[in-house]
Amino acid sequence: MISFTCDYTEGAYPKILEKLATTNFDQTEGYSEDEYCRAAARIIKEKCGCTNIDVHFLVGGTQTNLTVIAAALRPYQGAVAAATGHINTHETGAIEATGHKVLTLKSSDGKITAKQVQELYDSHYNEDGPEHTVQPKLVYISNPTEIGTIYSRAELEALSETCKKNNLLLYMDGARLGYALCSEKNDLDLPTITKLCDAFYIGGTKVGALFGEAVVIRNESLKEDFRYLIKQKGGMLAKGRLLGIQFQTLFEDDAYFKISEHADKLAMLIRKACIEKGYSFLSDSYTNQQFPIMPDAVLEKLKENFLYSYWQRIDESHSAVRFCTSWATKEENVLKLIDAIKTI
Amino acid sequence: MISFTCDYTEGAYPKILEKLATTNFDQTEGYSEDEYCRAAARIIKEKCGCTNIDVHFLVGGTQTNLTVIAAALRPYQGAVAAATGHINTHETGAIEATGHKVLTLKSSDGKITAKQVQELYDSHYNEDGPEHTVQPKLVYISNPTEIGTIYSRAELEALSETCKKNNLLLYMDGARLGYALCSEKNDLDLPTITKLCDAFYIGGTKVGALFGEAVVIRNESLKEDFRYLIKQKGGMLAKGRLLGIQFQTLFEDDAYFKISEHADKLAMLIRKACIEKGYSFLSDSYTNQQFPIMPDAVLEKLKENFLYSYWQRIDESHSAVRFCTSWATKEENVLKLIDAIKTI
Amino acid sequence: MISFTCDYTEGAYPKILEKLATTNFDQTEGYSEDEYCRAAARIIKEKCGCTNIDVHFLVGGTQTNLTVIAAALRPYQGAVAAATGHINTHETGAIEATGHKVLTLKSSDGKITAKQVQELYDSHYNEDGPEHTVQPKLVYISNPTEIGTIYSRAELEALSETCKKNNLLLYMDGARLGYALCSEKNDLDLPTITKLCDAFYIGGTKVGALFGEAVVIRNESLKEDFRYLIKQKGGMLAKGRLLGIQFQTLFEDDAYFKISEHADKLAMLIRKACIEKGYSFLSDSYTNQQFPIMPDAVLEKLKENFLYSYWQRIDESHSAVRFCTSWATKEENVLKLIDAIKTI
Amino acid sequence: MISFTCDYTEGAYPKILEKLATTNFDQTEGYSEDEYCRAAARIIKEKCGCTNIDVHFLVGGTQTNLTVIAAALRPYQGAVAAATGHINTHETGAIEATGHKVLTLKSSDGKITAKQVQELYDSHYNEDGPEHTVQPKLVYISNPTEIGTIYSRAELEALSETCKKNNLLLYMDGARLGYALCSEKNDLDLPTITKLCDAFYIGGTKVGALFGEAVVIRNESLKEDFRYLIKQKGGMLAKGRLLGIQFQTLFEDDAYFKISEHADKLAMLIRKACIEKGYSFLSDSYTNQQFPIMPDAVLEKLKENFLYSYWQRIDESHSAVRFCTSWATKEENVLKLIDAIKTI
Repeated sequence: MISFTCDYTEGAYPKILEKLATTNFDQTEGYSEDEYCRAAARIIKEKCGCTNIDVHFLVGGTQTNLTVIAAALRPYQGAVAAATGHINTHETGAIEATGHKVLTLKSSDGKITAKQVQELYDSHYNEDGPEHTVQPKLVYISNPTEIGTIYSRAELEALSETCKKNNLLLYMDGARLGYALCSEKNDLDLPTITKLCDAFYIGGTKVGALFGEAVVIRNESLKEDFRYLIKQKGGMLAKGRLLGIQFQTLFEDDAYFKISEHADKLAMLIRKACIEKGYSFLSDSYTNQQFPIMPDAVLEKLKENFLYSYWQRIDESHSAVRFCTSWATKEENVLKLIDAIKTI
Repeated sequence: MISFTCDYTEGAYPKILEKLATTNFDQTEGYSEDEYCRAAARIIKEKCGCTNIDVHFLVGGTQTNLTVIAAALRPYQGAVAAATGHINTHETGAIEATGHKVLTLKSSDGKITAKQVQELYDSHYNEDGPEHTVQPKLVYISNPTEIGTIYSRAELEALSETCKKNNLLLYMDGARLGYALCSEKNDLDLPTITKLCDAFYIGGTKVGALFGEAVVIRNESLKEDFRYLIKQKGGMLAKGRLLGIQFQTLFEDDAYFKISEHADKLAMLIRKACIEKGYSFLSDSYTNQQFPIMPDAVLEKLKENFLYSYWQRIDESHSAVRFCTSWATKEENVLKLIDAIKTI
Repeated sequence: MISFTCDYTEGAYPKILEKLATTNFDQTEGYSEDEYCRAAARIIKEKCGCTNIDVHFLVGGTQTNLTVIAAALRPYQGAVAAATGHINTHETGAIEATGHKVLTLKSSDGKITAKQVQELYDSHYNEDGPEHTVQPKLVYISNPTEIGTIYSRAELEALSETCKKNNLLLYMDGARLGYALCSEKNDLDLPTITKLCDAFYIGGTKVGALFGEAVVIRNESLKEDFRYLIKQKGGMLAKGRLLGIQFQTLFEDDAYFKISEHADKLAMLIRKACIEKGYSFLSDSYTNQQFPIMPDAVLEKLKENFLYSYWQRIDESHSAVRFCTSWATKEENVLKLIDAIKTI
Repeated sequence: MISFTCDYTEGAYPKILEKLATTNFDQTEGYSEDEYCRAAARIIKEKCGCTNIDVHFLVGGTQTNLTVIAAALRPYQGAVAAATGHINTHETGAIEATGHKVLTLKSSDGKITAKQVQELYDSHYNEDGPEHTVQPKLVYISNPTEIGTIYSRAELEALSETCKKNNLLLYMDGARLGYALCSEKNDLDLPTITKLCDAFYIGGTKVGALFGEAVVIRNESLKEDFRYLIKQKGGMLAKGRLLGIQFQTLFEDDAYFKISEHADKLAMLIRKACIEKGYSFLSDSYTNQQFPIMPDAVLEKLKENFLYSYWQRIDESHSAVRFCTSWATKEENVLKLIDAIKTI
């Protein structure tokens, strides 16, 4: 059985395990105050083309989102997000558990627009008594989105401008950031994202690490005391070096991008096969997640040799499913899948 | 420089890294629903002598404490703990951040007694309007405590009985549980702890794992929906297998206990050297943490070759410090330390 | 200028002030443990046709909603509500501030249906990993709704049955309950509501009191320790007698219903005038709030002598507005308004 | 039976009821945006000798404390208070329920000192990793304290200076502020308190109002968006005018101070009687609460005609109790009590 269910079915990009082994007996400070974390932060700052940023390492995505958002908001403020955004759908109310409402915007492609944000903002402040409603303060976007689409430079610039104009914070959930940056349709890069966002994170868990997300904070108001929040929310790893070692390894030789490119390319092969077969897609994804809409009968057949994620019912006889690729996906397995798609 | 600052200065017990390497390309389910986690849970149930328990794997101690306590309490209830308890002192208000007060009891040895708990309970319910004060509901103890002392079987039985009688939950923070169970003074074991506590955790981070804590839940009322809480609080590791693999490795051949015994024995050597030198101790610890009270001048000298944790000032010329041992501590380094203690 | 902006523009039903004056020097216990509160609870139990209920008195609606919902939910559970529900729109995220997500259902008439609740429930539990999403637990409805519509007995029975079947709690926000119960279209009464809901509140603030809401709890699981929650959330009035005196006065001679009937009747006059004029309505309300859709030019004219609440723009030249009546509304003022509506 | 149990056993200072009656049919804006609230705020600003302050009206003390503290703190920050402080003992964990730890200081007289605050502050920032502990940010004091003692000008100046120096906020709980300001030992006044505190509240509930507390905010950082917090925490009264009317009435002719003086004077009579009888006191109170330590046998006898609050056991045959006076206390009843004290 070959699994394409998600991008965290395997362990880690092998060099990470090697580095963990060779450094195993080094004695270091705890809580990410070690030399590996410092080195990883240095290299990330370099890649972001900016030294005036703070870099923190956390273990997982939900933890990262709730920590950043809790740091950014006063109690009566909320986070604006697409209704399909991860913080609104798949984090068991983690944001609300820190006391904050998620203010949702409609979206069919997983993205939100500067115009939507402006309208929400205006609608709040045009209320007779705005204090009776949650004040929008942070705008949450994911790139790629939960359904694989990506923001263009123009879209992100518009969002960033709107946020700045209205004193909102722009935060990008980059759980799969590598796959966005290496997509054939991408026109963004780390320095641009750093400039346009107040904070974002570079996802490790879904891009080759055992676990780990690197939070980049550019906005000064978000920097202060951030480590207190990491600790309080349970995200401060005792052996923080593990995070430093992983991110150092991923960025040292641009492994992060090579991994992502590998995954995206294989995903494009799956995409092409589906198109050739005449299947349409739930979303226009050029990243490592593909969401073809397929006949249930075909899906049933595929199941004999392949695992995928069931996404949603489309009509009586068709469903959207998800195929994921990653650093660990072997081309031969993708070819087997393509062959199956073609022949079933 | 040889460091005795804490028990998480190195990576992991080597077999763990080996197992991570050999399983690296296995494809598994995420979120601890994989075969490794199931195997680890099975072996832990065996060691606890009880199949009717739930075992969950979380990443770190603060996260574990806040998740268990949030699961146990209704909004107006509090956790009873020694004033020196980790949840009261070194978790940046993580418990309060979930909405709950820590109700503190005085303690000079890090432990609390059944009598103290009963008095606090009575004092609450004897109030004219108890609803004006926080209702005690969960009793938090750490074993070993933050200063290395351990609970005897009789002490734990008394606490357990008092809790049961008053419908309180007893929860043991076992961040360093191995070091308690392998102490020469210990008369507890996992099956007894399982019987006497409503929940506890077996610490991995400080006892040989890269990270990870295994929560054992015996009380039925705590079992329901626990995974929702793990997820919401940011503690659900995507590649949950990493936790399963580590705990499986630690318990398969009793490595957990061998590691702990190794550390405790070396700690006893340090203890003995200090006693011979005439130093007294901050606490009567027979576990891997030793807290001798030493002349500042001696400490200054020791610093040239050894790292320790400064704990607290005792008088103008003496301080209590902490020396920790672990799975990674080499006997030769302990002998060097002892030699230094003797000769300075 | 005559105001129809809301139902709390004046003080209180005069008998309340009289009773406050005559009892002013009585010495009573604080915190609603006085004879007036006991008397008020007794009479409310009588009106609800049930002695096995708990009655608590709180000051305001948002406070009441957040207290009941915080009492009902475990941390990962959410409250299901119409997207237009008060807890979702006009309480500044008070529910989220207690840690809980509001799970919204679409609604054009302010109401939600049993079918919608069942679908949401099924959709949650049919998820592959339901623990990644907020668990629905309490169903919040308002009666009348925020736009004046009311639940029929059949609708409430269906909701109640669905909730019971799925172990959900049904909670009714009765901020304006009197106006629902006295509507010409109503077929519910307090005993039926008591039977069908797990908890609800009888609104005082908007129905003749200076302030105050009477929470009725029928479900045993919600009763325990409720006073702790009132206190913790800041809702326990020191001079609790003020609440007892008010509700005693309102229910002693059915003043509550007489007031509501008065308001509803006057609202029907406004409604009729609008219909005769050919205006349509935002909602089909037979309670004290009327939401006619009127030409902006007409509204402009009306403003010269009357205050109303602007509700929302309908098209380029029409808007929906709200006219409210209450115990304090004088028939002569309504006649003046009607005259203006007819003649402008 | 004559009750001295607390200062909220009766209704309200009669002029308040009169004013409520005469204004009952006025139509006003809701939520404290009416003319009465504006007038009350104006007069309070005058009394505070400062126009650059914000004045908000809330219903009760616990609500006020939790709202101000939630407004002041970021999630990882705590409120410093005497262990005997109201927020630490009698608010059912209301502060913790907003996510914040109360950091306690020892106190035998209910007060805390600038030195204690400085030591706590230093101890936090001298930690190796301060981010592992709660950051002190707001200093909470009550004046008079829970046991009737008051802060001198010098003490408050010292606290204020220490707070300013360390960027801490100083907040005074003035639930019984009138009784402090009218005490024969007092050397503070409203303008001085306004200058020295970042925020404080003037208690109405315990000083003649039906209910109500007037929050005064001087520090700019606390002013922004405060109404959002009032609303979210359930403290925004729909008929806000009730608060305006009450505070206007209390301050218009200095009734607030006359009431307080009346109560303090009667309390001094009780105090004197106790001293003459040779009784000692739990605290050195010159305000409306007196805490004599009396033989249990005497207390038993007193119970036949008088109600008091039992405070705490002192030894086998003695207890501390509380006698409270207020605006409603009649001199003849105090004389009866004194007579009983003298003759029993």
